[in-house]
Amino acid sequence: MHIRVINPVITRVWEQDTLRTYSNVAGPGVNVSVVSLDWGTASIESYRDDALATPDILNKVLQAEKEGVDAVIIDCMADPGLHAAREISSIPVIGPAQASMHLAAILGFKFSVLSTSKRDIPWVEDQVTRYGLSKHLASVRPIDIPVLSLAENPEATFQALMQAAELAVTVDGAHVLVPGCTGLAGLAAHLREGLLKKDLDVQVLDPPSVAMKLAESLVSLGYAHSKMTFPFPPTKEIRWPF
Amino acid sequence: MHIRVINPVITRVWEQDTLRTYSNVAGPGVNVSVVSLDWGTASIESYRDDALATPDILNKVLQAEKEGVDAVIIDCMADPGLHAAREISSIPVIGPAQASMHLAAILGFKFSVLSTSKRDIPWVEDQVTRYGLSKHLASVRPIDIPVLSLAENPEATFQALMQAAELAVTVDGAHVLVPGCTGLAGLAAHLREGLLKKDLDVQVLDPPSVAMKLAESLVSLGYAHSKMTFPFPPTKEIRWPF
Amino acid sequence: MHIRVINPVITRVWEQDTLRTYSNVAGPGVNVSVVSLDWGTASIESYRDDALATPDILNKVLQAEKEGVDAVIIDCMADPGLHAAREISSIPVIGPAQASMHLAAILGFKFSVLSTSKRDIPWVEDQVTRYGLSKHLASVRPIDIPVLSLAENPEATFQALMQAAELAVTVDGAHVLVPGCTGLAGLAAHLREGLLKKDLDVQVLDPPSVAMKLAESLVSLGYAHSKMTFPFPPTKEIRWPF
Amino acid sequence: MHIRVINPVITRVWEQDTLRTYSNVAGPGVNVSVVSLDWGTASIESYRDDALATPDILNKVLQAEKEGVDAVIIDCMADPGLHAAREISSIPVIGPAQASMHLAAILGFKFSVLSTSKRDIPWVEDQVTRYGLSKHLASVRPIDIPVLSLAENPEATFQALMQAAELAVTVDGAHVLVPGCTGLAGLAAHLREGLLKKDLDVQVLDPPSVAMKLAESLVSLGYAHSKMTFPFPPTKEIRWPF
Amino acid sequence: MHIRVINPVITRVWEQDTLRTYSNVAGPGVNVSVVSLDWGTASIESYRDDALATPDILNKVLQAEKEGVDAVIIDCMADPGLHAAREISSIPVIGPAQASMHLAAILGFKFSVLSTSKRDIPWVEDQVTRYGLSKHLASVRPIDIPVLSLAENPEATFQALMQAAELAVTVDGAHVLVPGCTGLAGLAAHLREGLLKKDLDVQVLDPPSVAMKLAESLVSLGYAHSKMTFPFPPTKEIRWPF
Amino acid sequence: MHIRVINPVITRVWEQDTLRTYSNVAGPGVNVSVVSLDWGTASIESYRDDALATPDILNKVLQAEKEGVDAVIIDCMADPGLHAAREISSIPVIGPAQASMHLAAILGFKFSVLSTSKRDIPWVEDQVTRYGLSKHLASVRPIDIPVLSLAENPEATFQALMQAAELAVTVDGAHVLVPGCTGLAGLAAHLREGLLKKDLDVQVLDPPSVAMKLAESLVSLGYAHSKMTFPFPPTKEIRWPF
Repeated sequence: MHIRVINPVITRVWEQDTLRTYSNVAGPGVNVSVVSLDWGTASIESYRDDALATPDILNKVLQAEKEGVDAVIIDCMADPGLHAAREISSIPVIGPAQASMHLAAILGFKFSVLSTSKRDIPWVEDQVTRYGLSKHLASVRPIDIPVLSLAENPEATFQALMQAAELAVTVDGAHVLVPGCTGLAGLAAHLREGLLKKDLDVQVLDPPSVAMKLAESLVSLGYAHSKMTFPFPPTKEIRWPF
Repeated sequence: MHIRVINPVITRVWEQDTLRTYSNVAGPGVNVSVVSLDWGTASIESYRDDALATPDILNKVLQAEKEGVDAVIIDCMADPGLHAAREISSIPVIGPAQASMHLAAILGFKFSVLSTSKRDIPWVEDQVTRYGLSKHLASVRPIDIPVLSLAENPEATFQALMQAAELAVTVDGAHVLVPGCTGLAGLAAHLREGLLKKDLDVQVLDPPSVAMKLAESLVSLGYAHSKMTFPFPPTKEIRWPF
Repeated sequence: MHIRVINPVITRVWEQDTLRTYSNVAGPGVNVSVVSLDWGTASIESYRDDALATPDILNKVLQAEKEGVDAVIIDCMADPGLHAAREISSIPVIGPAQASMHLAAILGFKFSVLSTSKRDIPWVEDQVTRYGLSKHLASVRPIDIPVLSLAENPEATFQALMQAAELAVTVDGAHVLVPGCTGLAGLAAHLREGLLKKDLDVQVLDPPSVAMKLAESLVSLGYAHSKMTFPFPPTKEIRWPF
Repeated sequence: MHIRVINPVITRVWEQDTLRTYSNVAGPGVNVSVVSLDWGTASIESYRDDALATPDILNKVLQAEKEGVDAVIIDCMADPGLHAAREISSIPVIGPAQASMHLAAILGFKFSVLSTSKRDIPWVEDQVTRYGLSKHLASVRPIDIPVLSLAENPEATFQALMQAAELAVTVDGAHVLVPGCTGLAGLAAHLREGLLKKDLDVQVLDPPSVAMKLAESLVSLGYAHSKMTFPFPPTKEIRWPF
Repeated sequence: MHIRVINPVITRVWEQDTLRTYSNVAGPGVNVSVVSLDWGTASIESYRDDALATPDILNKVLQAEKEGVDAVIIDCMADPGLHAAREISSIPVIGPAQASMHLAAILGFKFSVLSTSKRDIPWVEDQVTRYGLSKHLASVRPIDIPVLSLAENPEATFQALMQAAELAVTVDGAHVLVPGCTGLAGLAAHLREGLLKKDLDVQVLDPPSVAMKLAESLVSLGYAHSKMTFPFPPTKEIRWPF
Repeated sequence: MHIRVINPVITRVWEQDTLRTYSNVAGPGVNVSVVSLDWGTASIESYRDDALATPDILNKVLQAEKEGVDAVIIDCMADPGLHAAREISSIPVIGPAQASMHLAAILGFKFSVLSTSKRDIPWVEDQVTRYGLSKHLASVRPIDIPVLSLAENPEATFQALMQAAELAVTVDGAHVLVPGCTGLAGLAAHLREGLLKKDLDVQVLDPPSVAMKLAESLVSLGYAHSKMTFPFPPTKEIRWPF
């Protein structure tokens, strides 16, 4: 089984990290490969960034299917281009946010998303609405650290995450937590421990891991997205530079 | 007042029609100009088409604001790029679908969207969900004629529209009708007359007209979208061919 | 075009103000006239007041249509008698609350209503529910000044409004604000400036202006409410003193 | 215990029937009295009729409370003036529709309202929305007989009711039925029998009976509506002819 | 009329109290009898307790119907076994929580449940969701005293209840309060008085009383739950120790 | 990894089939074991059956955790005892219905449940409501064959399933199908093929397979249900025969 992870930004610097992250959780006999975008932005924090990422994501998905890849994961909590990518492909295309939010709703009654910035709140709520999971959303709690600065001071990032998490659990009633950026990958287990020490026994999901397991499950069962919800686009003239 | 209409496809053939349509309903002292896309697709009937239209729509919106245009209308019922366009601009950006659906919900309790194809149903329902208007949606009724063939046989298009409209009103309980494609512009009044003859006194909206009036209203009152819902994207590296 | 504004109270003292307010935003060639009620209450702050206002509102609407008026605005955020008035008329009847709440939902994801009194909270929530916009409502925030005292101390009114507005934005997540009383008309622009100084770039709507623009738009496009949602009442015996 | 039934129309002809209907289900020691309106319409089939009924309903409620009556029932499935009447009174004011719809939601998962006319559909749906019971509504099924003609041909009325009921149960999935007009009172038991013969074991409520039992229950327990949802209106100038 | 109250726990100590509580509110000519369980738990505070109570509740319901009892009340705010009990019986089976929550929604727009423990919050929200009343729920406010300790220090229990009630009203906007445990029966009137002294004129329901009145109403009207929502289970092999 | 499948009925006849079904989809290194109940019913088709199954399911879950099993699957689309089982355990407990419905909502916008009997409709809708997925439910379509007769005439079962499936897709707009009984396991792939031949390219899920993959995913990631949603029950007296 071959899973392709699309790192939907033009920054290649995270590719090795991303490969390691996904390979670590991959089951036996599962190959992982990572590609980044040729065209797009350095990070995805707005509808604009999402819009600039999507065209090349579509290229990378087409290419993956042509290469015989079994499933594609778009490694970003914005799930950029998810619906469009499913239209043009027959193999499963997974968004870590959609996968994690549904799992969160299975494991507890309410979840919170720990986002990087206050400006994500309307955007994440819009996403949860589209995924039909509004009843399960306790809150979106921002940590107010830009995506590109998350790795600068890991301790500060973790402390901010702990604080947002505590508020989500004790004030908003969240019982499962979903980090709102794949750049926070790897902190989930640490965060769960920190919360357990405060007697808050909540689940904290690691979205890349959840996406990986969903991809493996779909491939092994022969499932993909419904082509009636995501039919192939009608053939038509396209003018495009890349 | 200067309103820019973006025809979000690479086909220039409709530009004059579009200009006439919008100019006809423009109030006194309102200038209308139309631009089409340099990059994108010939029509918008899928998430993929929407994704390929958006990057150049953003360019056209930036350019409009730079030229001192007062408001922008994206002339397509998919409202492609609406949220992203609002992020990068301070002037009002209007989507005919959003404008029409809210007006429909003001004029009656339930509306139906008359779409071109069956494949639009999930897509329009997704849109209505995002706009928070699901309670007002009676149904999405397709006429099963491709966007690019709507003008080929106007009588057949109208008959299909009449049939879908009747079902929407008598079976689904719609009291206001919203044509689901700006390519059906101009048929609204004719459709209303046809339905009146069958004793179905429902309102039929013409989305371009509704968008135009909303644009004029916003400009004259000095309103625009909220910059807290649609904040400017953080500055970051972008790699893009056009 | 002739727009009739019904001041749905027995107090004539605001008529000139109301006329000025609406005339100021009226487009070129639009005449505005104002009438008050012969029977009703001095202000509308309860379901009871609403009930006592409605019968004479219906008279005033009938009279307006007979006089050839093009559209009617009921100048009160309770939208008193809106549905009944639409039943008995063919010309558009506009409620400033319904018009403003839908516009608010277009301009941002969530709005708050700044009401005059705590007792309005259930009442406004009931209204938002009826308009099918509950998903867009961030909160109802009262300023606790009776309608008839709003003009007594304008500075205190404004300060109370600022405070309620700040809480609505920072605590409740509102991105658009809707003053909950037409008696607050004219403060919208001032309130937006005050909030901008605190770095809260939210839109603040002026409901009379929004109602006026909606009235003009409907008249110029030849639209009105759906007669299937609001059919003429069956003919029957009525006993009524005025 | 003294229960006052307000017959919210100007027709006195039904008063004896109404008194008998309510007295028949009244518990031991419960007195029933009936009053009709001095001002209003001959039947209530529109928002307009509702608006013309409400002012005198308020008078009758005030008078009932002054006379020491223990609770008031407004004998109409429009529940006209219910919220306003609760504002001005401390004793329970009951709407048969609200009482019946909540009971229906207790006895089964979904109910249908059997209304007199197709024009009631938007109006009843609006009502169910306000009562927060939309999830329990299977459908509104009209029988298309005007309120004032219901008694003309009882057999035809019953057959139309049976037909609407069968569709509600077999097509719409209703498990409890609520006649949408108190003029259909007394047919509930007969309708249930008719449906049982067709192997449709659904409950059919008789709204006046349900209202009576709710009134008795509230009085005997000392409960009334919450004065925080329905506070007394602020004192103010009122001009009114009766 | 004979109403059977099932005390769904193995503790007999409350039987006399329960009998007195229900008899006090029973109407003239209504006999009340109480039975406890032979198998189950000492109190019901979890889905587990509910699961262990239900089988013997079913026995007690079958037995009640065989004895000619007219209606059954399951005396616990978890409404344990309500749906299953309705399947196996034709006589009304009442859950005090369902009865009280619907009455709360009739008497005001929003209610809060005052639960015994923080751990009840997800559980009560799940219950309210099932009853289709989420729109009416202001909050679940725990008092953090275990069910079996409620009677140990009545004054402390009352003070905790007062504090939770005040927060529910002033912070969460509740206008009606529903104690979340029948073990709090009898405190409702006292709590209402305490709140009135603080100028919070809210209704406080006593769930056993509400259940009793609903049982009496259903029996006197000849109503029961719909056998289409709760059909008799198909005959099949059962292996069971008691 | 050891996964325990609880066959929640007293019939042992399906145990080998169940073991084969689950083992077939189990990943490398995953052991599967199956236990049936000592106490309960022969099949689960009602709330009553569910209630009689749950106590012994709890025993089997406790026993599984004691034996060091890694996760438990309750092999029935009623997900009987799911919430109670999670309270008493720390290892993941999976319900095939919950797992499949969430996956269905990931793969398409709307799913239908193909149930065995018409009497399941209210029951499945209740379940979907509890899982917070009502927006994704297109319909519940029964095939009207009792659970215990499904295997009697496989061809008739399949034809009934095909017919229900077609209606679900073409009439109700389902894009993913979820068989509503684990007794239909193995027909999913066959049903998908049958529908593809009719040009209906929808996904058909096999709930046991989906449950198995979810169990494996949770165990391999170290996740379980949130103990804040499902806390251990307080210690208390229990009287129970087995």
